[in-house]
Amino acid sequence: MLHFANDYTQGACQEILDAIVKTNFEDLAGYGADRYCESAKAKIRKVCEVKNADVHFLTGGTQANAVVINSMLESYEGVIAAETGHIAIHEAGAIEFTGHKVLTLPHHSGKIDVNELKEYLHTFYADENHEHMVFPGMVYISHPTEYGTLYSKKELIEISKTCKKYEIPLFLDGARLVYGLMAKDTDVTLPDIAQLCDVFYFGGTKAGALLGEAVVFTKNNTPKNFVTRIKQHGALLAKGRLLGVQFDTLFSNDLYKRIGKHTINLSEKLKNILHEKNYRFYLESPTNQQFIIIENTKMEELAKNVSFSFWEKYDENHTVIRFVTSWATTEKDLDELIKLL
Amino acid sequence: MLHFANDYTQGACQEILDAIVKTNFEDLAGYGADRYCESAKAKIRKVCEVKNADVHFLTGGTQANAVVINSMLESYEGVIAAETGHIAIHEAGAIEFTGHKVLTLPHHSGKIDVNELKEYLHTFYADENHEHMVFPGMVYISHPTEYGTLYSKKELIEISKTCKKYEIPLFLDGARLVYGLMAKDTDVTLPDIAQLCDVFYFGGTKAGALLGEAVVFTKNNTPKNFVTRIKQHGALLAKGRLLGVQFDTLFSNDLYKRIGKHTINLSEKLKNILHEKNYRFYLESPTNQQFIIIENTKMEELAKNVSFSFWEKYDENHTVIRFVTSWATTEKDLDELIKLL
Amino acid sequence: MLHFANDYTQGACQEILDAIVKTNFEDLAGYGADRYCESAKAKIRKVCEVKNADVHFLTGGTQANAVVINSMLESYEGVIAAETGHIAIHEAGAIEFTGHKVLTLPHHSGKIDVNELKEYLHTFYADENHEHMVFPGMVYISHPTEYGTLYSKKELIEISKTCKKYEIPLFLDGARLVYGLMAKDTDVTLPDIAQLCDVFYFGGTKAGALLGEAVVFTKNNTPKNFVTRIKQHGALLAKGRLLGVQFDTLFSNDLYKRIGKHTINLSEKLKNILHEKNYRFYLESPTNQQFIIIENTKMEELAKNVSFSFWEKYDENHTVIRFVTSWATTEKDLDELIKLL
Amino acid sequence: MLHFANDYTQGACQEILDAIVKTNFEDLAGYGADRYCESAKAKIRKVCEVKNADVHFLTGGTQANAVVINSMLESYEGVIAAETGHIAIHEAGAIEFTGHKVLTLPHHSGKIDVNELKEYLHTFYADENHEHMVFPGMVYISHPTEYGTLYSKKELIEISKTCKKYEIPLFLDGARLVYGLMAKDTDVTLPDIAQLCDVFYFGGTKAGALLGEAVVFTKNNTPKNFVTRIKQHGALLAKGRLLGVQFDTLFSNDLYKRIGKHTINLSEKLKNILHEKNYRFYLESPTNQQFIIIENTKMEELAKNVSFSFWEKYDENHTVIRFVTSWATTEKDLDELIKLL
Repeated sequence: MLHFANDYTQGACQEILDAIVKTNFEDLAGYGADRYCESAKAKIRKVCEVKNADVHFLTGGTQANAVVINSMLESYEGVIAAETGHIAIHEAGAIEFTGHKVLTLPHHSGKIDVNELKEYLHTFYADENHEHMVFPGMVYISHPTEYGTLYSKKELIEISKTCKKYEIPLFLDGARLVYGLMAKDTDVTLPDIAQLCDVFYFGGTKAGALLGEAVVFTKNNTPKNFVTRIKQHGALLAKGRLLGVQFDTLFSNDLYKRIGKHTINLSEKLKNILHEKNYRFYLESPTNQQFIIIENTKMEELAKNVSFSFWEKYDENHTVIRFVTSWATTEKDLDELIKLL
Repeated sequence: MLHFANDYTQGACQEILDAIVKTNFEDLAGYGADRYCESAKAKIRKVCEVKNADVHFLTGGTQANAVVINSMLESYEGVIAAETGHIAIHEAGAIEFTGHKVLTLPHHSGKIDVNELKEYLHTFYADENHEHMVFPGMVYISHPTEYGTLYSKKELIEISKTCKKYEIPLFLDGARLVYGLMAKDTDVTLPDIAQLCDVFYFGGTKAGALLGEAVVFTKNNTPKNFVTRIKQHGALLAKGRLLGVQFDTLFSNDLYKRIGKHTINLSEKLKNILHEKNYRFYLESPTNQQFIIIENTKMEELAKNVSFSFWEKYDENHTVIRFVTSWATTEKDLDELIKLL
Repeated sequence: MLHFANDYTQGACQEILDAIVKTNFEDLAGYGADRYCESAKAKIRKVCEVKNADVHFLTGGTQANAVVINSMLESYEGVIAAETGHIAIHEAGAIEFTGHKVLTLPHHSGKIDVNELKEYLHTFYADENHEHMVFPGMVYISHPTEYGTLYSKKELIEISKTCKKYEIPLFLDGARLVYGLMAKDTDVTLPDIAQLCDVFYFGGTKAGALLGEAVVFTKNNTPKNFVTRIKQHGALLAKGRLLGVQFDTLFSNDLYKRIGKHTINLSEKLKNILHEKNYRFYLESPTNQQFIIIENTKMEELAKNVSFSFWEKYDENHTVIRFVTSWATTEKDLDELIKLL
Repeated sequence: MLHFANDYTQGACQEILDAIVKTNFEDLAGYGADRYCESAKAKIRKVCEVKNADVHFLTGGTQANAVVINSMLESYEGVIAAETGHIAIHEAGAIEFTGHKVLTLPHHSGKIDVNELKEYLHTFYADENHEHMVFPGMVYISHPTEYGTLYSKKELIEISKTCKKYEIPLFLDGARLVYGLMAKDTDVTLPDIAQLCDVFYFGGTKAGALLGEAVVFTKNNTPKNFVTRIKQHGALLAKGRLLGVQFDTLFSNDLYKRIGKHTINLSEKLKNILHEKNYRFYLESPTNQQFIIIENTKMEELAKNVSFSFWEKYDENHTVIRFVTSWATTEKDLDELIKLL
């Protein structure tokens, strides 16, 4: 069976696995107070080019979203997101569970439109009754989005400016950020993100770590007693080293870049082949997810040898499916997939 | 100044005021354990034609919505509502505050469409990923809606059937129910509502009481220890008599019907006059709210002598405004309004 | 039947009832934006001698406690209270419902001891593990306490100083404040409370109003968008006038003082008689609650003609019971009670 | 430096580490739907001797406590625990964060007393005002307790019976359960726990895993849609295999027993030596934690070469400190410690 269903079917990439093994029997302080966490934080600050960025490690994306959003919002505030945003649909109401509404904007291939954002914020404050409504307290974007698409630097600048104008933070969900940074034609760098966002996270789980997301507060704006908030969410690991060691490795010797580049190369190659073979694209993504519209009979045939994601029904006879490449995908996997397509 | 802005500008209607005064110096048990509460409950059970309906009195609509919804949902469930539903927009996130997502459907003059509801529920359970999503745990409708519109009996039956099929309760927000019941051409009665809904409330605040909503559980389905839940929400009045006396009066000598009829008559008369004077309707409501599109200059002129509700901007030169009649509106008020229109 | 069970068995006192009736048919703005609310707030600011005190009206004590505490605490903070504090025991977990722990100190006839408070705060910050613990974020005291006892001015000053040192607000639950202010030997005035506390409320429900508590923020420290927070708690009345009119009356012509004085006089008289008749006191309170230890047979005899509160079992043959006087208690009631004792 | 401060200073034990490495490049389904999770669950069911026990893997103790308690309680219920229980003190209010009060009983070397539990429950229901109080909805015990002590089988039976009588579940926090099961004189087995508790968890983090707790529902009583609840808490790992592989290994070839036995042997040896050297015990524990009272000067001397836990100040000149052994402690470590003592 070939695996193209998602980017978390295997464990850790070799270098991370080696680091976990190598450091395993060292006696280290608990709860993230170890030297690997410190080292990883220093490296992240460096690649972000923000000297006093504050970094915290959490285990997964939903957890990171809930902890960050709940910690930064007042109780009467909600978070603005695309209607397709992960927090809006696929986190089982984890944001509402902590008391906050997700305020949705229409999506454009997974992205929000800055003009619609401006209109939303303007209309809210113009409404005489807004005291009876949920205040917009943050903007949440995914980069890459849930559709694998990317914001341009210009778009991020505009969104960031709008947030500043309304004095609300901009939060970037970077569960797949590594694949966004290494996309072929992107003009958005990690320092750009660190500069334009008030808080973001760099995903480890989908980038070759066993688990882990690195949350970065970029503007001396960490919520007070953030470690206690993490603990209160049940999100503080006793053996915080597990996250520290992995991120320390990801940010050593450009590992994250190599992982990103490898994955993107395979995804681009896949995209080209799909084009050559005249597959119909539902959405052409610059990152590691490709969405095609396929005949149901063909899909069933393919499913015998390849795992992919069912995305949604397209019409009676067609379905949208998704292929995902990752650090774990090999050229050989791709060659075999090509034969089957 | 003429008052047509809303249905809660005055205190209580005369009969309710008299009852409050008359019973004021009686020594009564606290927290709703008094004989007026008991009497009111018995009367409500009778007009609902549900012998074992369980009735509880709360102070306002947002409170009633939050207490009922939070008490009936599991933590992983949300409540389906029209995107224009009061809980979706104008309750400052009171539902999310208690941990639950409001799952919105498109609105049709304030109403949800049963086919869209069916489609939503069907799609949810068909989605392989629904374990990562908020489960639909209840359907919330307003009757009259926030636009003054009404469901037909056929529509309610269809919605009720759909809820039964998916084993989720149907909750009807009746903040203005009295005006819905007395609407000219409605075929929906109070016993119909009691039969078709699992829980609903009958609004007192907008029907001539100082405050108060009567929540009715119709199917032996009161959440366990409901009084404790009310207390936990900060919603239990020490002098519960204040609610008991008012509802006991509302349901004596058909007071609620007389209030409804009076108000609807004036609203119908207003509607006719607006037609005669060729005002352009934004939405023609069968209840006590009328929405018209008016030129801004004319609106400003009118505002000197009449209070009405600004609803929304229609275009550069026009605005949607709302006139509301109530138990407190007099024929004389209407005559004076007619002169000004 | 004579009523000494509590201070909320009757409706409103005559002057408040008259004011409700008199203003009933005035058309007023909703949600507390009416002139009676404004007038009441001005009067409260004046008697508190704090020019810019910010006043908000809520319906009951549990609601006031939940809204104030939840609005002023960070999510990782709890509120310190006596183990006998109303929020610790008799509010069905309303504080925890909003996410906050009640951190309890031993009680001394219902009061906290300032040295134990200091010790608690000192120990907390001295604990190396306090990052894993609930931070003390507020001190809550009741005055009078749940046992009818009062803090001295010196005690309040010491508690207030301690709060300032640790930069946490002092919150005073004044559900029965009127009876504390008018107690015979108290040296604590309303301006003292306004000066020493960061926020407190003046209870209306137990002081002759139908319902209502006036929350006073004394230090330009109202939580941002407090009205939206009230709405979110389901605690905003459409007819806010009902609270405005009542508090406006309570603070006109010294009504609250007259109510307090009348009630305290009767309570003192009752206390003297109980002494004369050699009843054994469980706790001798300076306010409107008296606690005695009575033989069970005698208690049962008494219960035929008098309602009082069962407080707790004392031993096999004795019970602690409570007599409460209020604005509604008359000299005649007391004379009849004396005969029965 | 010798490490006796806690049982989570190193990574994973060798066998678990090997299993992680060995399975790392297998393509497996996400979110716990992989074969290692299935295998681990089957093994746990077997050692528990409960055929249909339902097992779920979470990452840490606080998370397990919050997810289980919040999922099993109604909103108006709290959880009974010893005042020294982990949930009562050292979880940053994670239980209250989800809306529930921790109702505390006195502790006896970390344990609750069944008679005090009975008294608490009896008194609660006997109280006429209990509708205004938090309902006891669960009993939480730690085994071993936070002081390393153990319940006897007789005690567990009595507590279990009491829970059944009041129809509330018994929940056992087994963060260090492996050390409880292997204690020298315990008469409590894993099947006993599975039979007597409604839900418990078996800790991996402190028993040689990198992270992970196995929650076991023993009575066909898993809360509905539990996976969605886990997701909502931000507690669902994409690479659930990481937990599955570790627990599968822990329950293969009696690894957990060997780990427990090794650790207990060293702890017993340490206890004997401390006795021989006439150290004064604060509390003599049958598991892997030993608490002694030591002179401050001696403590400071020791601290140069050994890490241990500061527990609490005993008096001006003495301190209570804790030594912990674990799977990672070696005979050699102990020999060196002995020299220093």
